[in-house]
Amino acid sequence: MSLAQYRPIVWEADHLILLDQRYLPVKEDFITAKTIEDAFTAIKDMVVRGAPCIGFTGIYGLALWIKSQDTLVKQELIAAGEYLKSSRPTAVNLMYEVDRAVDYANSMLQGKKSKEEIYKSIIQFGHDQITSLEKKNQKMADYAAEELKKIYGDRPLRLMTHCNTGFLACGCIGTALGVISNYNKLGKVEQVWVDETRPYLQGTRLTAFELTKEKIPFKIVVEGAASYLMKNKKVDAIFVGADRIVANGDTANKIGTSTLSIVAKHYGIPFFVVAPLSSFDTSLPDGTHIEIEMRPDDEITHFRGQQVGPYGAQTENPSFDVTDHTMITGIICENGIIRPENKNHLLEVVKA
Amino acid sequence: MSLAQYRPIVWEADHLILLDQRYLPVKEDFITAKTIEDAFTAIKDMVVRGAPCIGFTGIYGLALWIKSQDTLVKQELIAAGEYLKSSRPTAVNLMYEVDRAVDYANSMLQGKKSKEEIYKSIIQFGHDQITSLEKKNQKMADYAAEELKKIYGDRPLRLMTHCNTGFLACGCIGTALGVISNYNKLGKVEQVWVDETRPYLQGTRLTAFELTKEKIPFKIVVEGAASYLMKNKKVDAIFVGADRIVANGDTANKIGTSTLSIVAKHYGIPFFVVAPLSSFDTSLPDGTHIEIEMRPDDEITHFRGQQVGPYGAQTENPSFDVTDHTMITGIICENGIIRPENKNHLLEVVKA
Repeated sequence: MSLAQYRPIVWEADHLILLDQRYLPVKEDFITAKTIEDAFTAIKDMVVRGAPCIGFTGIYGLALWIKSQDTLVKQELIAAGEYLKSSRPTAVNLMYEVDRAVDYANSMLQGKKSKEEIYKSIIQFGHDQITSLEKKNQKMADYAAEELKKIYGDRPLRLMTHCNTGFLACGCIGTALGVISNYNKLGKVEQVWVDETRPYLQGTRLTAFELTKEKIPFKIVVEGAASYLMKNKKVDAIFVGADRIVANGDTANKIGTSTLSIVAKHYGIPFFVVAPLSSFDTSLPDGTHIEIEMRPDDEITHFRGQQVGPYGAQTENPSFDVTDHTMITGIICENGIIRPENKNHLLEVVKA
Repeated sequence: MSLAQYRPIVWEADHLILLDQRYLPVKEDFITAKTIEDAFTAIKDMVVRGAPCIGFTGIYGLALWIKSQDTLVKQELIAAGEYLKSSRPTAVNLMYEVDRAVDYANSMLQGKKSKEEIYKSIIQFGHDQITSLEKKNQKMADYAAEELKKIYGDRPLRLMTHCNTGFLACGCIGTALGVISNYNKLGKVEQVWVDETRPYLQGTRLTAFELTKEKIPFKIVVEGAASYLMKNKKVDAIFVGADRIVANGDTANKIGTSTLSIVAKHYGIPFFVVAPLSSFDTSLPDGTHIEIEMRPDDEITHFRGQQVGPYGAQTENPSFDVTDHTMITGIICENGIIRPENKNHLLEVVKA
């Protein structure tokens, strides 16, 4: 599978092909979803991951259901949507995408479109969502490339990233890792530093897998090595994703992001957040209002079921931290680069 | 075994009892060394770890050999020492302690002391080395307690540490963890933050074990959580050990120490290095002269033999980093507290 075609989610003729992300990077299998039940199970069992990919699987899952029906009935269409949404009840993006697909199918049904037409339109709707995200990601990658050229000219760079933000999560280019992948296509990546991203090791397992697939040179490091690398001038710029960005530019992202940002600031290394506008929540004035989800102890005290820490040891295991906007050189979205040091710049760019 | 008695290395009547540290914290076994071969194997197979403990095992190993002899012969005594030293040829402290014990035994032999007298004197020599280290560690713990009282008064504190620096490594109190243990005995530790210390997890495996044994409340965190904890005002002070401290106060210690120190400085959290004078190397002017050992990829790409990263993935895996002296609030040694911001203070205190 060539680079341009490598995608974790692909619709093919009348079925969906999904990269089984559960055993990456050791085992790289694809599963075929031919029914709505297959799509449901793929979401529920975490064959697919990443908010965008889960949403796309929901849309295509609805298409699979439509295909299986002799006649489309509104009530059954709605029930099929509810069924898909119940595969992962906390996935907001899944709800959003499935609801839109059901509404769209229903409006076509009211408009007396044929089953075959509705089926094809929902497949196209899935394709359109991926294309739309891809365009946004490409825009962000272009803004980032421009910015890097401004700072460093044309020399190949050593870029660092945290967690996983590439095509595995997004279905296409990706956010922070999309920036890196795009810069590599321009021939300007010397090497990527992948931090392992404890406790779930998304860096080691997923980001390293993506970079391997894209043949981009990389090395994995422990998170504690951040100061060592930057002190020894081995990092030119850092790109991370975001779970939520609030009005003043404070950014919630995978635990460790804020720690990395402080080390970067200390050494004067440019630190960028890359995220689409859908990750912005300008209803919150600053990061103190972001609630942080706490995760179970055994993610830290155990490894794949093997006990590592003492019996009964407790942890504090926040899934996210909040990076202060003063540590961020720029927030790159599809509308441009936000400079959080300028107080109102975020709201201006978001509303542009 | 009560707290006061819990030691990884104990001489009992005519044999040595060693805590088998290889399977901590999941399995807590003790092994009995009755011969020099037992002591040799315990060092070689890493039943004991930590430079001080390895040195003590060398001394007691020599005592075990003396006990086994009918008549002491100088050449055989020297050969016994060489044999012990070959158990871990890179352990500088083992060389130092065994050489001293052999010289001491030899001088007694020249002085016509009986085998029994020499045997008892070497055992006592081992005890004395432990007691001497214990006194130094206690002094450091006392200086630290004074300092903490100056900053925070009597309120119980949340203290953070990195890697393992307690009785498991030192045979007695310990350095950074000794400070914490001592402060807990004064009733003034509310909670300890143990960072897991990737890639070898000394925090999760060893420090958490020691704190469990001493019944000091603790929680394990990933290293990336440093900023989260400090931003949320959950850390009052940080104590770490040192592998090497050079003339200007720059300090080599387990990878991650420098990263932690920068986050501490950013949030204004006091950051202390605790190390005996034997860790100082004032022949080097600053940290740029410290050579950093690089470790194999599989410490990061694998976990207990299980592959985690992609096949063939490379890492950069330095065992140490260098913490800049400007990030260190104080270096606590048996002569007092060095303030690295005062340019010549280190040399003054070391030479005091």
